[in-house]
Amino acid sequence: MNRYWSQVAKSLTPYVPGEQPKLANLVKLNTNENPYGPSPKVLAAIHAETGDTLRLYPDPLASRLRAAIAAYHGQIEARQVFVGNGSDEVLAHVFLALLKHEQPILFPDISYSFYPVYANLYQITYETVPLSAQFEIRAGDYLRPNGGIVIANPNAPTGRALPASEIERIVAGNPDSVVVIDEAYVDFGAESVVPLVNKYPNLLVVHTLSKARSLAGLRVGFAVGHADLIEALERVKDSFNSYPLDRLAQAGATAAIEDREWFERTRQAVMRSRAHLTADLTALGFAVLPSSANFVFARHPGRDGGELAQALRQRSIIVRHFKLPRIDQFLRITIGTDEQCMGLVTALRELLEGPQATASTEDT
Amino acid sequence: MNRYWSQVAKSLTPYVPGEQPKLANLVKLNTNENPYGPSPKVLAAIHAETGDTLRLYPDPLASRLRAAIAAYHGQIEARQVFVGNGSDEVLAHVFLALLKHEQPILFPDISYSFYPVYANLYQITYETVPLSAQFEIRAGDYLRPNGGIVIANPNAPTGRALPASEIERIVAGNPDSVVVIDEAYVDFGAESVVPLVNKYPNLLVVHTLSKARSLAGLRVGFAVGHADLIEALERVKDSFNSYPLDRLAQAGATAAIEDREWFERTRQAVMRSRAHLTADLTALGFAVLPSSANFVFARHPGRDGGELAQALRQRSIIVRHFKLPRIDQFLRITIGTDEQCMGLVTALRELLEGPQATASTEDT
Repeated sequence: MNRYWSQVAKSLTPYVPGEQPKLANLVKLNTNENPYGPSPKVLAAIHAETGDTLRLYPDPLASRLRAAIAAYHGQIEARQVFVGNGSDEVLAHVFLALLKHEQPILFPDISYSFYPVYANLYQITYETVPLSAQFEIRAGDYLRPNGGIVIANPNAPTGRALPASEIERIVAGNPDSVVVIDEAYVDFGAESVVPLVNKYPNLLVVHTLSKARSLAGLRVGFAVGHADLIEALERVKDSFNSYPLDRLAQAGATAAIEDREWFERTRQAVMRSRAHLTADLTALGFAVLPSSANFVFARHPGRDGGELAQALRQRSIIVRHFKLPRIDQFLRITIGTDEQCMGLVTALRELLEGPQATASTEDT
Repeated sequence: MNRYWSQVAKSLTPYVPGEQPKLANLVKLNTNENPYGPSPKVLAAIHAETGDTLRLYPDPLASRLRAAIAAYHGQIEARQVFVGNGSDEVLAHVFLALLKHEQPILFPDISYSFYPVYANLYQITYETVPLSAQFEIRAGDYLRPNGGIVIANPNAPTGRALPASEIERIVAGNPDSVVVIDEAYVDFGAESVVPLVNKYPNLLVVHTLSKARSLAGLRVGFAVGHADLIEALERVKDSFNSYPLDRLAQAGATAAIEDREWFERTRQAVMRSRAHLTADLTALGFAVLPSSANFVFARHPGRDGGELAQALRQRSIIVRHFKLPRIDQFLRITIGTDEQCMGLVTALRELLEGPQATASTEDT
């Protein structure tokens, strides 16, 4: 910190993303990436765009991509779609354009830990709303005065989802403020409220291509809502960076949205693996929250969460552990391939029951 | 505009980038792109990165790219380099992290028109400093109390450059504030002050890969300065978007920085074409400012700038015209290939002297 820093820079507590290790032999179950790569059509579209035209600026409006997203969801127009450099950038613009008001905004006490970081960046006051003892969001808790609401559905890191009808209660009950539903994980088994955006002018739904579309490395996210909300986002974006999505990201993302078959196959595979992993962890004595995401949130009544994460790391498996109130006994485990999940279960069995237990199991 | 917009969103006057037309047959001399495509090594690096690993987040630290930039410039370390999604994003973070202080910041009255937009976005007060009648920045004008200084060198849209010694006067004369030198166009013939960053802890130099590196479509820019300045930028970035540079951008940008031969050859070609175009325009009666950039800024004493731009457009040639005080008689013309420059000169000759003039010239 030095005298040249602004007060804002001095006051920040930045978000710390999950580790991106450079060691290739690690089993990486810590940042909720998809175990399956992107569609071959995505790779082909990127290859086709990799040429002389990279000397030219990309389309600042990302028209093709927005049209593809509108067509995918149906019933919405391209002007109801805002795209950005990952849903993190989209959310940042949302906070500044639509959530900075006099009253504090609301979000759950346990949720994506970037939300309070954005709020601090833009000096937006906020109040956190406790999840239930079962880590559920209760719609009724959000029916009180506020400057805006942000809810991840499914929530992270719990994985628990609310039905669309409960989300609708929150949206309908707050006609004077913007309700942002962060659906980063929705395609792994929750109900999207995108179909409600034409009914509620205060509803904004945020999606990412980093999870179910297997494109965390390409950095594309988007928001869907009433055209008036989208216009506010465009104004902030055009005061920040005219061209946030490069040519390759626009081409790859468009192909990803258009390839419904690959999307369907890979997300179904992840959901099947989640069911198996949940059963295996439960058999080992873990309490596993019901997950609608591509991760599970689990704790073992007999072992400290932080110690388990450390011990797994020594076995070259990384999972996410949050040293935070209420959840410091939990592990957030990304759904990997079936092979990776089995490796994790074997390692946990050894840790919990000793090497003999595993050996005898393997012998039978 | 509606009731859901924040005061910030309501107050903005966004930047309007140069047109990115979708018509393929236009001669595009309006947004200062490089007429030559990126290095084949850049394309190869992107192809190599286009695969299964796109499912994984990119390196949030962009370590390889920052190391390549440090090695290219020499005498600086990777921790003195900040990278972002185009120099526009880098500049946005600079404004919030290093230029938001009590006193107004200073920049020229005629310069990159995104500077006042950033200032408004973050509610930073500013004062503009008039260029001389010859559109020169005068170092002495910047030796007065301020909250920070932003200077494009070469300046845009004038193309005029200050020698490094004059920039150093400004930096040395303002030890209490950050001096940002935007060197987007420096490789086309101006002196970089990157070698001064170890001497002055208040100097930050911003570069882009969109111009001399032929990668406007990939969105990569960077800043070089004292590690303390870089740390402030990292804090803002990590409160906004952990992963601004996707895997393909990191790979392509690294290869671009490393291919010095391609860089050298293409920038020399642009500078040669600029000399020819300047001579041709002068012969047609234009007053052309001396340019150290990949564009020229020129006006014709006998013809209105806006009308000329319109007339060129009707001939499928687009140049940039700014309806702004002091410069509304000028055209900003990007240096294209020699063929494109000749096409422009032919069109201008017809416009100025009538079709016969051109025909007879072509006959001789």
